[in-house]
Order: sequence, then C-alpha cells, then structure tokens
Amino acid sequence: MTRILISQITKLVGETVTLMGWVDTKRDHGKVTFIDLRDRSGKVQCVAFGQMGELTVESVVEITGLVKAREARNINKEIPTGSIEIEVTNYRILNKAKDLPITLDSDGKEIGEEPRLKFRYLDLRRERMQKNIRLRSNFIQALRKTLYAQEFVDIETPILTQSTKEGARDFIVPSRFQPGKFYALPQSPQQYKQLLMTAGFERYFQIARCIRDEDLRADRGFEFTQLDLEMSFVEREDVMNTVEEITKIAIKAVGGKLKDEQFPIFTYKQALEQFGSDKFDLRTDEEKKQGVLAFAWVIDFPFFKQVDKSDAAEVADSKSGWTFTHNPFSSPQEKFIKDHLEGKNLDQILTTQYDLVCNGYEAGGGSIRAHNKEVLQATFKNMGYSNEEIEQSVGHMLRAFEVGTPPHGGIALGLDRLVMILAGETSLKEVIAFPMSSSGRTAVMGAPSDVEPGLLDELGLEIKKQKNQK
Amino acid sequence: MTRILISQITKLVGETVTLMGWVDTKRDHGKVTFIDLRDRSGKVQCVAFGQMGELTVESVVEITGLVKAREARNINKEIPTGSIEIEVTNYRILNKAKDLPITLDSDGKEIGEEPRLKFRYLDLRRERMQKNIRLRSNFIQALRKTLYAQEFVDIETPILTQSTKEGARDFIVPSRFQPGKFYALPQSPQQYKQLLMTAGFERYFQIARCIRDEDLRADRGFEFTQLDLEMSFVEREDVMNTVEEITKIAIKAVGGKLKDEQFPIFTYKQALEQFGSDKFDLRTDEEKKQGVLAFAWVIDFPFFKQVDKSDAAEVADSKSGWTFTHNPFSSPQEKFIKDHLEGKNLDQILTTQYDLVCNGYEAGGGSIRAHNKEVLQATFKNMGYSNEEIEQSVGHMLRAFEVGTPPHGGIALGLDRLVMILAGETSLKEVIAFPMSSSGRTAVMGAPSDVEPGLLDELGLEIKKQKNQK
Repeated sequence: MTRILISQITKLVGETVTLMGWVDTKRDHGKVTFIDLRDRSGKVQCVAFGQMGELTVESVVEITGLVKAREARNINKEIPTGSIEIEVTNYRILNKAKDLPITLDSDGKEIGEEPRLKFRYLDLRRERMQKNIRLRSNFIQALRKTLYAQEFVDIETPILTQSTKEGARDFIVPSRFQPGKFYALPQSPQQYKQLLMTAGFERYFQIARCIRDEDLRADRGFEFTQLDLEMSFVEREDVMNTVEEITKIAIKAVGGKLKDEQFPIFTYKQALEQFGSDKFDLRTDEEKKQGVLAFAWVIDFPFFKQVDKSDAAEVADSKSGWTFTHNPFSSPQEKFIKDHLEGKNLDQILTTQYDLVCNGYEAGGGSIRAHNKEVLQATFKNMGYSNEEIEQSVGHMLRAFEVGTPPHGGIALGLDRLVMILAGETSLKEVIAFPMSSSGRTAVMGAPSDVEPGLLDELGLEIKKQKNQK
Repeated sequence: MTRILISQITKLVGETVTLMGWVDTKRDHGKVTFIDLRDRSGKVQCVAFGQMGELTVESVVEITGLVKAREARNINKEIPTGSIEIEVTNYRILNKAKDLPITLDSDGKEIGEEPRLKFRYLDLRRERMQKNIRLRSNFIQALRKTLYAQEFVDIETPILTQSTKEGARDFIVPSRFQPGKFYALPQSPQQYKQLLMTAGFERYFQIARCIRDEDLRADRGFEFTQLDLEMSFVEREDVMNTVEEITKIAIKAVGGKLKDEQFPIFTYKQALEQFGSDKFDLRTDEEKKQGVLAFAWVIDFPFFKQVDKSDAAEVADSKSGWTFTHNPFSSPQEKFIKDHLEGKNLDQILTTQYDLVCNGYEAGGGSIRAHNKEVLQATFKNMGYSNEEIEQSVGHMLRAFEVGTPPHGGIALGLDRLVMILAGETSLKEVIAFPMSSSGRTAVMGAPSDVEPGLLDELGLEIKKQKNQK
C-alpha cells in the first residue's frame, strides 16, 4: 500500500488509506485511543479501538485506516482535515520515541540554548521552526528566480582561499601539502566577484556562505549567508534600483508586506540627524504589529574614518591612523576622486556606498567599486600602506585592473537577517537549521574538539602548552 | 545615454546607440579602423574613421555610434549582428588593457595550468569558459526548479562542523575561543541531512560544498559541489525514480541529450562481469560524437570489504579488518539485516546502495539509511568498534534514532562531474570558475600562505621545525 499525504485525504471519505508520520498527541480513553498523526502536510485525528501501548508521542508510525466523515457536531473547523477522521485498522511502529530530552509542547523559546541546539533534530519539529526553515527556502528561491530572470549568473567561489582585507579576523585552515602554510575561509567573495566582472560575466550572484572569526554575541555565529551580487557598467542608482526590485519581488512572493513601494533614500548625515543612527526603524507602532517591512537606503557615507584604537583589526589594517568605513574596494564619489588620489581632505571624501536598512537592522550594503589601479592604490596609500604592502595585499586586483576591467558595483544582502525579519523573529538562530551556539559550539555535533596528534604532525603543527586564554 | 546590449541592436537601424564592452579584435587600416566589440550578449563590428591608437585589444570601451545596415555583399551570416555595423561617432576608454599575460586567441587548453589559473579572470573570458560557467548556472537552477516543484526544501548545513566518518581526511580549522581544539570542514552533509529527516522535513536538498583533504590528482581539487538530497518514508526504488526524473528534466532543460529515457539498472555483479568495472560507458562511438549522456544505475553492492592496507584512512576506520564499501550510514538490504546484526557472513551482506554512472564516470551515489539504533551500531561493531568508540563516533545519531526517525534514504550527485560531461569537457577545472591548481594553490590568490605569528599565538598553535614533508 503506498503512502498518501495527510493533506490529500479529505477527498477520500470511504476509502482505506495508509498514512505515515509522527504521533503528535495521544489520548488513551481505555476503550478508544485518539492519535493526532502529523506529516509534513498537516495533521489528522486517528481513532483506534483499544489501547496502543507502545505508541509513544513523537514515534514514527504507519497507520492504515478508513477515512470517515465526522458527525456535524464533531467537525473541527480549525484544521483542514477537521471534517474527517481515520478509523485505524492497522498500525506499525517504524521508529519508537523514548522520553524526549526537550519538550515540543511550547514554542521552545523558554528552553535554554544549549539543549535546543544539542537536540536540534527535535527542536526543528516545532511548527514555528518548520515554518521558518521553509520560509527561508522559499524566499531564497524567489530571489534566485528573479535574479535568473534578470540574466544574473550563479557562480560559486572557493571556500579554501586567501586571507583578504574584510575588516574581521579570518579562520585559517592548515595545509597538509605545505606544512606551516594556511588557507583562509572566505569572509565574503568580494574579490572573486570583482574578478568575475573582469572576466566579463557582467551580472553575477551567489548565495554565499561567509565565515568570520568574530567575537561571539548572543545572536551572532561565525557563519552567515549572503546574497552576493555584482554588476558591470552600472552606476550607484542602477545597482540600488536592481536590488530594490529583486528584494520587493521576492518578499512579496513569500507573502511579506512592505511599508513603502519605493524605498526612501537618506544620506548618512540626514539619518544621523533624524534618527541618531544609520540603522533606523521607519515603522509606526501599528505597522510593527502587522509585521510590515520598512526598507530604506542610506548613502553618502564618509569613505575614511579615524582608526578606533580599541579595535585590533582596524589598528592592524591601518598604518596612517585612517581606515575605511565600509569597504576598501569601493570607489569614492566622482567629485572626490581628485582629493582621494592626492590624499587630501580624507575626512571630506564620500564613498559610493549604499546601505539597505530594514526595521532598524542593517539588511545589506554595497558600493560602486574602484576599477582602476590608481584609485585602489590611493585607498591603501591613504591608509598608510607602502607600495610593497599594497602589492602584497591587492597586487592581483591591480593586475586585473590593467587588462580590461569594466566599471562595476554590487551589494551583499544578509539573508539570515532578512529571513529573521520576514519570519517575525528576533534572533538569527530561529531561521538557521543548525546554528552555532553562543559559545561557538556546532549544533548537535560537539565541535570544536581534539584532533589526533598524528594529523597535527602531518600538518606540521604543535599545540602550545595551554595558557589561560579566552 | 543609457547602455544597450549588442544582441538588441539589429532592430535599431538608423538609430544612434551607446554600447559598452570589450575590444574583441581590432584591425587598423589607417584611414579606417574596424573593431569587434563584445559584451555578454554578443559581438558587433564597429567602424571608426581614423586610428584608435589607445584602444588596445581587450580594453573596455564605451562606443556611441549609428546603427547602419550593411550592404548585401558585406553581410556576415555567421554572427547574429552580421546584417549591421556601428559607425562610431564617439568612444571613451573605460579601462585600458595592457599586454595580456595569456593569449585569448585559442581555447586555452594548450596553455599551462598555472598561468591559466593565475590569470583566471582573463582565462574565463574565452567563449568556451563563458559557456561552461553559464551552463553550470542554468543546469543547477533547472535542478532546483524541479526539486522545488517536488516539494523539496533547500536547507543549509554548517561549514564549521565536527570530524565525521566519510572515508577521507578532514580539513581542520583551529578555534580561537578554545585554543588547541578544532572544527572540521564538511566532507558532506551526510549526518545533518539524516538529522533533518529526524526533524520531519521529509524532503531536503542542498547544493552543498564538500571539502576533503585528499591526495591531489590532475583533475581533483579539495572542494567539490554536490546535489545533496534526502527523503523520508521511501524505499530504494522511490529515491532512484525521483533522482532519475529530476536529472532527466534538468538535463533536457539545458539541451542535453540522453541515450536512454529510462536508465538501465545493473547489479554490481553484472557490471563487473559485463564491463569489468562499476563505472562503465554505455555509449556507442556514434553517440560519443554526438555528446549523448548514457546513464545507468548500479545496485547490490557488498556492504563490507576487507580493509585495503595501503589506504591509511581505511586502516584507521576499521579495527576488525572489515570496512564499509560505500557509506557506514547505509542500511543493509532487508534480507541481510539478521546477519548484519549478528555479525555473520559479512562478505555476503548486500547494501541498499545505488550508484549513478554516466559515460564511464561515477555521477553519484546514495542509499537507504539505517534509521534504527541497532543497525547502525552493528555496522560499527562489524568494523571492530567497541561500544564506547561507537558512542563517541555516532552517539548523537543513535540518540536521534530513539526519538522518532523515519525510514529515509537519499543521494549525492557530483555536480562538477555532471556539468563537465554536459559541457563535453574532460577536466573538472573547465567547469569551475576558480578551481584549485594540481598543487593545491587557490586560483588567482596565492593561498596557502604564511600567517602572522600573532594569530597562531591566539590559536594556541606553533609551527614545527620544518621537516622535508610532502
């Protein structure tokens, strides 16, 4: 007998069906037992005569039974299958559930993070989590569909790559073939996507995994996913318009509600004056209740800022006391290029950066890039780099800018964040299937962990005698 | 003046247009200069009076000119824009190309791997490479579309994870928060996808990046991309039918030709007898010329084999002299489960594994998984693991099998390989944008490389005094 989904059975009154799924609830009334059976498509009430002793809640079961119309007074209008029930003729336990280590009777938010992540395979069974993960899948596919329709090409870039200047610390990966040398995991595909513009693809995107060794916060893991996008022969407004259109189409495709059909644009200065921050929330209280998404653009950021001496990465990246505010690969705005090249009035130079904010969060950011050698060189010179240091850091980019690199620009949208907002959640972990814990442990699996000394030998590494490091 | 694509201009005879792109070829006839301009949509001939001295081949240029119909005798039927040409009224060099470090006049196959990868941003400009990378993008999107239509959910799994038993060596990533401990990069999402079945998603897929520290061969890097897929409440034939259908739809969507509308099925024994190998080529010589894809399934593999003593990973994984042939998470076929549980007749036990072969290559493989504790435990017992060792290796899986894990199975299809076959290429590197070199170097970027001693300090690591390791 082949399996049928629960969502399909209301039409099958009078027929015998075989269902497979999980025991959602069980009420043992002695002579009769009521089971709510759950599969990915829904739930249905099953009635069995006698007890079903072995059939514990959350067990996986195959149930064969007759689809019966319920009497009018027993119809449950709150579920799609409320007009019928299954009279069980036979059942078979496919996998019995022992006592559950975490409860599934709530939305899970009152349970500690560690048990939720350790038993994530159970935690994800919650209706809310199922909805969130499916929403994520659908939203990303809606984005992809729109991008393909606009002739973007999906291109994968390497996971094992070289350390780049992205403003955070790299995770490094020891090489066995060259002991003592290391790959870095990508903080973003920034340079590769620019090189794809040099390569002539003109429109690139990737749902890209980015990995940064940042200090952990309650709501930040080491990994995140971004819609990474780059376009050739464009100006700032072209990219902003394209991204706005793609975002709107995808959000509507999954039922999201937008505050503004056209995203308002604020300068950085206006944002600070009006909201005291460049991450502001344009929603009214009423809109907050309705789950509306209020997007806005912020432009005209300064290119450079004074180094924050408490930020080790900033200090390391700058040798002049000046560092970039957003992205060293950006181009300054046209009217500031002369100053930029001459290293004058650094505090006055505005970048082509555009940030997308949504409901008080930063949803993404991008810029028109430097596509000629002199501008990129000047950026690093203004940060105090010598010619040799520039060559070592971005020499391959400079060479690419000498063989026909078109004007280009792009953006990176934080997909975890966008899905979180869409789902009405307030933590990124609610929209990631297997997030890392706040202490940096991998969900379910116990990483990081010890490795065999033989492997370290092969990698040419030794673990230092432990200090009390943190 | 806004840009227009070259593919759009044949309809615009008599109009003035602005094109942007690369100088594909240039012929300087003194009084007249002929340029073939190239953008992502095609090429067109541009005619300028006088010389265009600075405009070198592969420079990026903006050309404004009049679209003119060619005289009948000058029509070039070999290109879509052959009926017109552009009479240049103005041009502006957007990025000048100096001498190219590699030639673009050939298909590139005669150029050494190192320069091709070092200057990959140029190498990718070849028509062949553009086609391959775009084919990859379209094929993967066709797969996704079909999977979504069949209610599969796209779910991302972690990059920083724990070492698992997948038959190859892990890349490891040192933890800064727990110096001396390590994450591992995923060899495949095998365990996560099974846990997603425990979580009730029923149909999962992911275009997954897998990373393995394997000995390099000419045609193998450390990274590869697979269509990773898992389904609940299925038997072997259900997965095979679903995968076959998805594959056929996606291949046809990008113009691929199939030898057989229904993929023939061979047992492992038959394959060895008939072809001397389980990776065989069913094409005739005629079909080889026509670029046909000949798929076949291979089933009924032995579950266990004697350890190959020359294979360090196999030796490490087994303590009894027996190891798995394909996947330790597979279920044996029903009729062998008793022997499996009792550890008898190990050489006789057949696994539920199915391999997909295409044109002599292995295109993918999967199985019905063990979904109850005893079967998975027995697999490791048969490999000589103690209870403690089993608990340490797969304890989290055993626990998941006690809280309602449905019967499930899946597959992993090697997408690099499939696209390579579809593109008519013989090397995986021809269908990967930035492949790793045969010596393990990252394209364009120079990884692996040295890292600053300060970072190693933070990670609690020390580089051993170099031995002559390889």
